[in-house]
Amino acid sequence: MPLPFSFIPALLPRGRTTRPTHASLTPHHPRHATPSFTLPQRRRHHFFKPLRMLHADSNAPRSSPISGKTVFVLGGDGFCGWPTALHLSEIGYDVVIVDNLSRRKIDVELECESLTPIAPITERLRVWNTLSGGRLIRFEYLDVAHEYGQLLELIKRERPVAVVHFAEQRAAPYSMKGSRQKRYTIDNNVNGTMSVLTAVAESELDVHVVHLGTMGVYGYGSSGGRIPEGYIDVVLPSGERQSILHPAYPGSVYHASKCLDALLFQFFARNDGLRITDLHQGVVWGTFTDNTMRHELLMNRYDYDSDYGTVLNRFLMQAASDLPLTVYGTGGQTRAFIHIRDTCKCIALALANPPQPGDRVKIYNQVAETHRVRDLAALVARKTGARVDHVNNPRQEAAENELDVSNQNFRSLGWAPVTLEETLLDEVVGVAERYRHRIDVNKIMPSSFWNKRRAAECRAAPVLNSNGQAVTGSDGGGGDADGAAIDWQERLMQQLAGGDAHKLERVRAALRGE
Amino acid sequence: MPLPFSFIPALLPRGRTTRPTHASLTPHHPRHATPSFTLPQRRRHHFFKPLRMLHADSNAPRSSPISGKTVFVLGGDGFCGWPTALHLSEIGYDVVIVDNLSRRKIDVELECESLTPIAPITERLRVWNTLSGGRLIRFEYLDVAHEYGQLLELIKRERPVAVVHFAEQRAAPYSMKGSRQKRYTIDNNVNGTMSVLTAVAESELDVHVVHLGTMGVYGYGSSGGRIPEGYIDVVLPSGERQSILHPAYPGSVYHASKCLDALLFQFFARNDGLRITDLHQGVVWGTFTDNTMRHELLMNRYDYDSDYGTVLNRFLMQAASDLPLTVYGTGGQTRAFIHIRDTCKCIALALANPPQPGDRVKIYNQVAETHRVRDLAALVARKTGARVDHVNNPRQEAAENELDVSNQNFRSLGWAPVTLEETLLDEVVGVAERYRHRIDVNKIMPSSFWNKRRAAECRAAPVLNSNGQAVTGSDGGGGDADGAAIDWQERLMQQLAGGDAHKLERVRAALRGE
Repeated sequence: MPLPFSFIPALLPRGRTTRPTHASLTPHHPRHATPSFTLPQRRRHHFFKPLRMLHADSNAPRSSPISGKTVFVLGGDGFCGWPTALHLSEIGYDVVIVDNLSRRKIDVELECESLTPIAPITERLRVWNTLSGGRLIRFEYLDVAHEYGQLLELIKRERPVAVVHFAEQRAAPYSMKGSRQKRYTIDNNVNGTMSVLTAVAESELDVHVVHLGTMGVYGYGSSGGRIPEGYIDVVLPSGERQSILHPAYPGSVYHASKCLDALLFQFFARNDGLRITDLHQGVVWGTFTDNTMRHELLMNRYDYDSDYGTVLNRFLMQAASDLPLTVYGTGGQTRAFIHIRDTCKCIALALANPPQPGDRVKIYNQVAETHRVRDLAALVARKTGARVDHVNNPRQEAAENELDVSNQNFRSLGWAPVTLEETLLDEVVGVAERYRHRIDVNKIMPSSFWNKRRAAECRAAPVLNSNGQAVTGSDGGGGDADGAAIDWQERLMQQLAGGDAHKLERVRAALRGE
Repeated sequence: MPLPFSFIPALLPRGRTTRPTHASLTPHHPRHATPSFTLPQRRRHHFFKPLRMLHADSNAPRSSPISGKTVFVLGGDGFCGWPTALHLSEIGYDVVIVDNLSRRKIDVELECESLTPIAPITERLRVWNTLSGGRLIRFEYLDVAHEYGQLLELIKRERPVAVVHFAEQRAAPYSMKGSRQKRYTIDNNVNGTMSVLTAVAESELDVHVVHLGTMGVYGYGSSGGRIPEGYIDVVLPSGERQSILHPAYPGSVYHASKCLDALLFQFFARNDGLRITDLHQGVVWGTFTDNTMRHELLMNRYDYDSDYGTVLNRFLMQAASDLPLTVYGTGGQTRAFIHIRDTCKCIALALANPPQPGDRVKIYNQVAETHRVRDLAALVARKTGARVDHVNNPRQEAAENELDVSNQNFRSLGWAPVTLEETLLDEVVGVAERYRHRIDVNKIMPSSFWNKRRAAECRAAPVLNSNGQAVTGSDGGGGDADGAAIDWQERLMQQLAGGDAHKLERVRAALRGE
């Protein structure tokens, strides 16, 4: 399968004479085996533009009010951070990516990889810095949470106008996986935020801090109506009206870490007069932006596993791979969504509109639309013909919730978000199809459970199809003492095969290493 | 000055043939120099009871519903933790103190010591375990925040019914001293709490977590009236009534850390069904309890420095040492207070009344009374004849605030707190007088400032006496470029001397090491 992008030998790292091997590792590993599925012609996309277009389509003004202004992108090698860094570079900022590559290291821990092959950060930057027409992005390998001295020194030396802070563990399931991951998420995220705020205060520079938060801080159904942007007006028992930070109802340790961050922001804004913007983002979907499509080595990551894959991207990947869509519980959960391209745009808008020193933290809901999970599954099923299965919900949450979110703050700045109904949905399916030979089917079903009860439920109960019929048998409830020990992988394989004995045998053989 | 307590050679550590040297270190150090003040006879107290009384006055039942139940006291070597550990041991719990001795290490960092000489933890326990009639307290040296595996193993092995969690950096000024201390406070406190909760959840044991929080989480004047206990009933914009966690308005990084803790408690109570009690304690005063008075080697610490000394204890120490009372700003701040003896009692009450699994976090205001700081200063001045000085407030806070606090939860359990009007005030003055030769006068004036502005104000403006007259000159505002560099220690000495040239010279000589 030839790659439909312009091949630029000069950009490859020294010693390489062919294109990078990310997509063509050893064929003995099942996720790299030749795909046995047929790739529908209608979905072949040309993801990468020809080289001749690269300079021509750079629409950034060569000299703008922001050119020469330095912005740090902490966590700029990650799923949201990387396309954001490219976007900010494109529109004129001098971008410094600060990252300890923790997301890639978690891939190692989870024995999972991005569905899309992603180039190492230095390769990414080599390409960008060649193609961008002089808009250089620099990179500092630094653990924001624990290498305070280096962070402070970097701020003092570079004097950024803003720090965009993505440098946090960002998956709720991973944060609930086990004690190690729970503690890592709090330690990394809270210490990271604390370091950023402390360093900015110590530097005595006027640095706008823009933080990526989550809609999950609000809880679901706790606002008594539409979720406002950060603050809610309440009447106290005395009858006094007060605008308070929206009460925090985190649904996971990850979400809790963002609630903790919010209190630190409030304190540093009040005590030190820091200018802080907190963006409560919805579930991000999509993977490509105009900038990441400029070259294969600029490709963004696409997580499909049950820990890091966000719900819509997981569905699209499952559909593209002829796998059933795995809806948790009834699918009655309503969530807020935003496309990765809008993530980039929103952050540029937030940077351009900082609060004043002394202002309270400026909070935006960075959200395009809301959807119920089962409706999303139905939508994807309609488009692709995929089957919808319901599995027990690994999360401790309400089975059904409504969600009505205000996003007036960004809309008032002229933001017109893209929505699910557009061609981008096809684009993501196309990406997933293109790389489906890289999927490790063992990574699809939930492997992180919110508590002991949820874990037991998920392991004991049957997987249901969309008609509520059992696809696999249950462990027989309390009657079988060994119930909890029944092979979960076997059940997963059965589900993946969907009753097709031939397919089941192929999966079994693949897992045996044949 | 002979020590008025029973001397028990058998209890001393191997190799020592005289009483411990805590109170009699090298006389060359100013804080250990022979005091040049006259100790008023009326205030000589016999702090320690004769040995023959030790067993007789143990009023704990030999067999009670709690005997044999193990309780961990995390941070059990500290100011509140130590007397609490003794109290819980006395009333029948099997107590395990878990501590990394961080408070003593911070003494090293700050080059300051408890006003009272305190014995090492193993000496303390040797004495207690001899005198307590078989009520043994054990000790584990462990960093709760960072040694997770050991903490979990200890919980699994000892199967405590409860964990009392004092293992946090507990001084607001220290938490604002500098970037290192800010980051340490968040790292230690939040990771500590996270470890405790994660370990209890992972152990799958039914362990009641009792945490020492602070009244400072509420802010001042943000409740629209009396401060409720943890939760406040509000009306949402939709008209819906909701009982929410009281909005957090922390006044320092320390207070912020307790607000962060509160969100973690909420999450683990909801997600894992943990039983959690959070005690929002007022400013603790006093130092001795019946148990710490049993023997000199059981003595509790008494912090008088501007970082760790709580306001009333600082005033009592200053009065006992013929130093002016240092009121910050107008002294219009109203604070909540509790005596150390009541801290112990409240924790025993909280242990005896755990919430049920699945309940929300049980929150008590652990507070006996409220007072305005300048009224406290006036009270102490009346009792002792001390002078009252006003210094610029190092804290970023409102100059004046009201404070009306509910403490019905503990009162409904039969708690009748001791108040300032009683003889305990004399007792504390007595302690301070007894050990005033150990005071380092350099540690009295504020050395931690909430932000750059407060630091500049404190360094630039005059110290005023209670009539608003300047005791020392100002730096002359912006006219003097070197203003900020003017010797703060010199000003401090001038203030301490209060215009007495002879005293000033003595202080100078002491600082020179003469």
